[in-house]
Amino acid sequence: MSLDGLSINLATIRAQWNVREAVEACRRHGIGAVDPWRDQVAAIGLDTCVRAIKDNGMRVTGYCRGGMFPAADAAGRQAAIDDNYRAIDEAVALGAECLVIVAGGLPSGSRDIAAARQMVAEGLAAILPYARSANMPLAIEPLHPMTAADRCVVNTLAQALDLCDQLGDGVGVTIDTYHVWWDPDLANQIARAGEDGRILAHHICDWLVPTRDLVTDRGMMGDGVIDLSGFRRMIEAAGFFGPQEVEIFSAENWWKRPGDEVLRTCIARYEACCR
Amino acid sequence: MSLDGLSINLATIRAQWNVREAVEACRRHGIGAVDPWRDQVAAIGLDTCVRAIKDNGMRVTGYCRGGMFPAADAAGRQAAIDDNYRAIDEAVALGAECLVIVAGGLPSGSRDIAAARQMVAEGLAAILPYARSANMPLAIEPLHPMTAADRCVVNTLAQALDLCDQLGDGVGVTIDTYHVWWDPDLANQIARAGEDGRILAHHICDWLVPTRDLVTDRGMMGDGVIDLSGFRRMIEAAGFFGPQEVEIFSAENWWKRPGDEVLRTCIARYEACCR
Repeated sequence: MSLDGLSINLATIRAQWNVREAVEACRRHGIGAVDPWRDQVAAIGLDTCVRAIKDNGMRVTGYCRGGMFPAADAAGRQAAIDDNYRAIDEAVALGAECLVIVAGGLPSGSRDIAAARQMVAEGLAAILPYARSANMPLAIEPLHPMTAADRCVVNTLAQALDLCDQLGDGVGVTIDTYHVWWDPDLANQIARAGEDGRILAHHICDWLVPTRDLVTDRGMMGDGVIDLSGFRRMIEAAGFFGPQEVEIFSAENWWKRPGDEVLRTCIARYEACCR
Repeated sequence: MSLDGLSINLATIRAQWNVREAVEACRRHGIGAVDPWRDQVAAIGLDTCVRAIKDNGMRVTGYCRGGMFPAADAAGRQAAIDDNYRAIDEAVALGAECLVIVAGGLPSGSRDIAAARQMVAEGLAAILPYARSANMPLAIEPLHPMTAADRCVVNTLAQALDLCDQLGDGVGVTIDTYHVWWDPDLANQIARAGEDGRILAHHICDWLVPTRDLVTDRGMMGDGVIDLSGFRRMIEAAGFFGPQEVEIFSAENWWKRPGDEVLRTCIARYEACCR
């Protein structure tokens, strides 16, 4: 079966391989698309990563990540904006199809989530002209509400799409099953995202029962409770047919297994559960 | 200062005291309202609890909990409904002002959250005539989306209020800061709940950073990131002036401390952070 519809977010195999090794491993397994993280790219250098991707003919379905806009003072917010310019440059160099945006959490000491959300809107507005000029779409990813305090104050697809409406062209959304599967308004909002042409990426993994950690206990597709094939049908009905990108943070399980086993399992579960 | 606006959900001191001891302790500390749990009541018997509450002149701001409607088969769903009739009877005996409803999670083996939500609506519709005849309001509590798989498929205030609209008289909502503080639509939905006269209870605790467990790592008011006094202002602006009920599940902290220390801290933080 073709694996054209499968991409590997390199966080999934971050414990096993650097970007070059991971890209070569994906190629060995017949996988033609990846999404690297900035710290992974920095670890071996942007040029090395660009070469590895070109040498292996890899598609880059996204680059993780820009965002992290809220900060306690104006200097901190400007530093975040400046860092996002660099993230855009790197995404362009890598040939990424979008820059994934994770908004950021509350500034240290703050209890004002509305203010943090305003900082996100302002940060995005600040970098958007540069992103547009670089033809780099910004893919705002709503993260699960359990991340609202320390990671991401954009917590529903509706909220992310409202931001898109406010910002105009050049922004869209990353829809990650893990973060939005629970949303009572999910079907409506996926359809809305499709109508507006806002779906830029589709990330997948599963929700485990029980979930033992708020960050690093995501499940392999099929091991949890998300109806992944039903979810994909909604995404395709909304007009998005790009790859499903496997993103699994799993400190106690998949990050401890051999990378080849992880990739084999991703392929098998993608074929069994996600189409 | 008066503590009329404070209630203690007895889960907060469940590790330290049984219901009778807890009620007596609250009275010693000048607290005049509690909310016991069914397993706590069963542990020493309903009659003993009723007597302890009457002897100490306690107000009962709620009874935890009914609900848990989804089940894999019709017999399981009927058993849940029957159990809710008993919960209503107990709530009446205790003089509770409402029966708190936690919807329940996915049936074992299910990935169909829409079906589970339908089971919740049907379960509530089944028990509602009996609850009405007993004058026992059902207080649907939206729980945090991180509980959607195994505990509660009602995950936003909007969803709970839609259920209320569908069900009519005799149902309302419990608004717990911990479960809904992150919601981008919170202010609108609290106002909507007030307009419809649906606010039946206001639970409080705080969201810790980091949060180490999805169930039992809730924070004492003031130790986390929720703007509790701002939250209370929204609740009062919506017309609810009933007690704030402290509900803290804290396996590694507050459940390990002496109960008197916990109650003293609840009072101090209520006065400092919640009004």
